[in-house]
Amino acid sequence: MTSYLIGLVGTGIGPSASPALHEREADELGLRYVYRLLDLDVLRRPVADVLDAARLAGFDGLNITHPAKQAVLPHLDELSPEAEALGAVNTVVFDRGRATGHNTDATGFARSLRRGLPDVRRDDVVLLGAGGAGAAVAHALLSSGIGRLTVHDVDGERAARLAGALRDRFGADRAVTGGLDAVRDADGLVHATPTGMAAHPGTPLPAELLRPELWVADIVYRPLETALLEAARARGCRVLHGGGMVVLQAAESFRLFTGVEPDPARMLRHFDTLDGGTARAA
Amino acid sequence: MTSYLIGLVGTGIGPSASPALHEREADELGLRYVYRLLDLDVLRRPVADVLDAARLAGFDGLNITHPAKQAVLPHLDELSPEAEALGAVNTVVFDRGRATGHNTDATGFARSLRRGLPDVRRDDVVLLGAGGAGAAVAHALLSSGIGRLTVHDVDGERAARLAGALRDRFGADRAVTGGLDAVRDADGLVHATPTGMAAHPGTPLPAELLRPELWVADIVYRPLETALLEAARARGCRVLHGGGMVVLQAAESFRLFTGVEPDPARMLRHFDTLDGGTARAA
Repeated sequence: MTSYLIGLVGTGIGPSASPALHEREADELGLRYVYRLLDLDVLRRPVADVLDAARLAGFDGLNITHPAKQAVLPHLDELSPEAEALGAVNTVVFDRGRATGHNTDATGFARSLRRGLPDVRRDDVVLLGAGGAGAAVAHALLSSGIGRLTVHDVDGERAARLAGALRDRFGADRAVTGGLDAVRDADGLVHATPTGMAAHPGTPLPAELLRPELWVADIVYRPLETALLEAARARGCRVLHGGGMVVLQAAESFRLFTGVEPDPARMLRHFDTLDGGTARAA
Repeated sequence: MTSYLIGLVGTGIGPSASPALHEREADELGLRYVYRLLDLDVLRRPVADVLDAARLAGFDGLNITHPAKQAVLPHLDELSPEAEALGAVNTVVFDRGRATGHNTDATGFARSLRRGLPDVRRDDVVLLGAGGAGAAVAHALLSSGIGRLTVHDVDGERAARLAGALRDRFGADRAVTGGLDAVRDADGLVHATPTGMAAHPGTPLPAELLRPELWVADIVYRPLETALLEAARARGCRVLHGGGMVVLQAAESFRLFTGVEPDPARMLRHFDTLDGGTARAA
C-alpha cells in the first residue's frame, strides 16, 4: 500500500520530462507513484502557498524549478550541505511534516559528464553562465576532478561573485573570471546560459573559438541538439548534450523521495524514447 | 500519463478499506492511482484548510467521512441533487478548480440491498437510526421500491425530523415514526446506528423482536459480523452485512473520480480478501 506522491513546482513546466521519467522508473521498480505538475502560472499562488498545500495534502516530495529554486529556501526546515552551498534547492523531501531541501542538479551534471565524457582532459575548463544553473555546474565541476575553472558571464559582476564563492569553497587557485578568449586554451567548455533554447536562439560564442581538441558540454536540453553542439560537432569537438543532467538529477531526486535506488541507465534509455515534443522540442 | 490522485478526509480513518479498494481496482483497470488518507486528527487543521490544500495541490477528488460530511458543504461550488437532498457529501470531485459534492452512500446501500437480498418483501421496513447514515439509507430505500418506512431513533425528535423530510420528498404515506415494536409487523429491518461497532458493543434491539420472516440489513461493517446479525441469523432471518454498502459506494465514487466504470463484483471479491485487521476488525 506504500505510494509516492511527488510534484514539480515552477513555471512553464508543461513540457517537462520529469513526470514520465519518474513514473516510468517507478513502474519498473513496482512502486505506486504519481508525479504531478504544480505550475505557478496556472495556480496563481505564491510558492509558499503551494509548498504548504503539498505538505498538508501529504506529498512525499517536490522538485523545484525556475523561478522558485531560491524562493523556497525560507520555507524549508532544513537544507542539505549541497543546497546550502549553492543557495538553491531543486528537491524537497517531506518527512513527518518536516521539509528538507536538496540540490541534485550538481551531482546530476557531474555524473552526466563522467558517463558521457569519461576520458577527457579536465585541467582547464571554461564555464559560460554564472546564474543558478552555472553555479550548480561549477560546484559539480570543482568537486569532481576539474583543475581550474574560468567563469564567464555577460554580467561581469555575477561572474566575479561566483568565482569568489568558488575560491572560498575550493581554494584560491581553482576559479578565475575571464573573457571568451579563455576558450582558446581550455580543455573543455561548459555552457550554462539559456542561449540555444527556442526562446533564445543562437550560439553563445563565435564558432571560430571551437577547435577539435575542445570538448563541449551544454546544459540546455530543449532541444537536445543546440546550435552550439551542432557547431562544435562540425568543428570536430566531442560533445555532451543536456539530457544526461536532466535524467541523472531526476534519478538522484527519485532516490531521495523513495529511498529506493533507481537504474540511471534505464532512465537514460527511457529519456531517449520520449516523444520529441516532450523531451526534445522547446 | 493520466493519473488519479484521491484522498479520504475524516477522523480515525487509519483502518479504512478505501485505499486498498480504490488502488486495487485501478490496478486491474491499468490506471495510475494514488489514494491517500488525510486524517483530520493527524493534520490538526480545519476541514476547509485540508480541502483547499487538496484542491491547490491538484487532487482529482476526495472521499469525505465522519465528522466532515456536513462540514464540507459551505466550501463546495456545487452539489449533486442527491447530496443536496441528503445535506451530506461523501465524495468531492475537483474539475478545473471547481469542487462538486456528491453522495454515493445512498446508491451504495441501494445496490448492496438489491444484490444481497434481491427477492425479499419490501412493503414495510423499519429503519433504526435517523442520523446521517440513517438519512442516506432512508433515501436509498424510498428511491428503490420500499413501500413504507418506519423511522425509529432514541432521539424522537430526530426521527420525526427525518420522517417529515422523507414525506416531503417521497409522499405523505411513505414514512412514519414508530417504536421498536414496529419490527413485529415489518418485512425488513435496516440498522443505521453505531451499535455493534467495537466502541459501541451490543445489539440495538431485543432479540425477541427478530423472527425468521424478517430480513435484517446492518450498515455497520467493522466488524462485518455484528451481534445483531449473529442474533438475526440464529433466529433464522436472512441478513446483509455492511460490507456491500462500503464497497459499492467506493465503486460509485471511483466512477465519479475517473469517468471509468469499475467492476463492482471484482471490488466485492477483493474486499472479502482484505486483511481482517483492515476490513473486519474494529
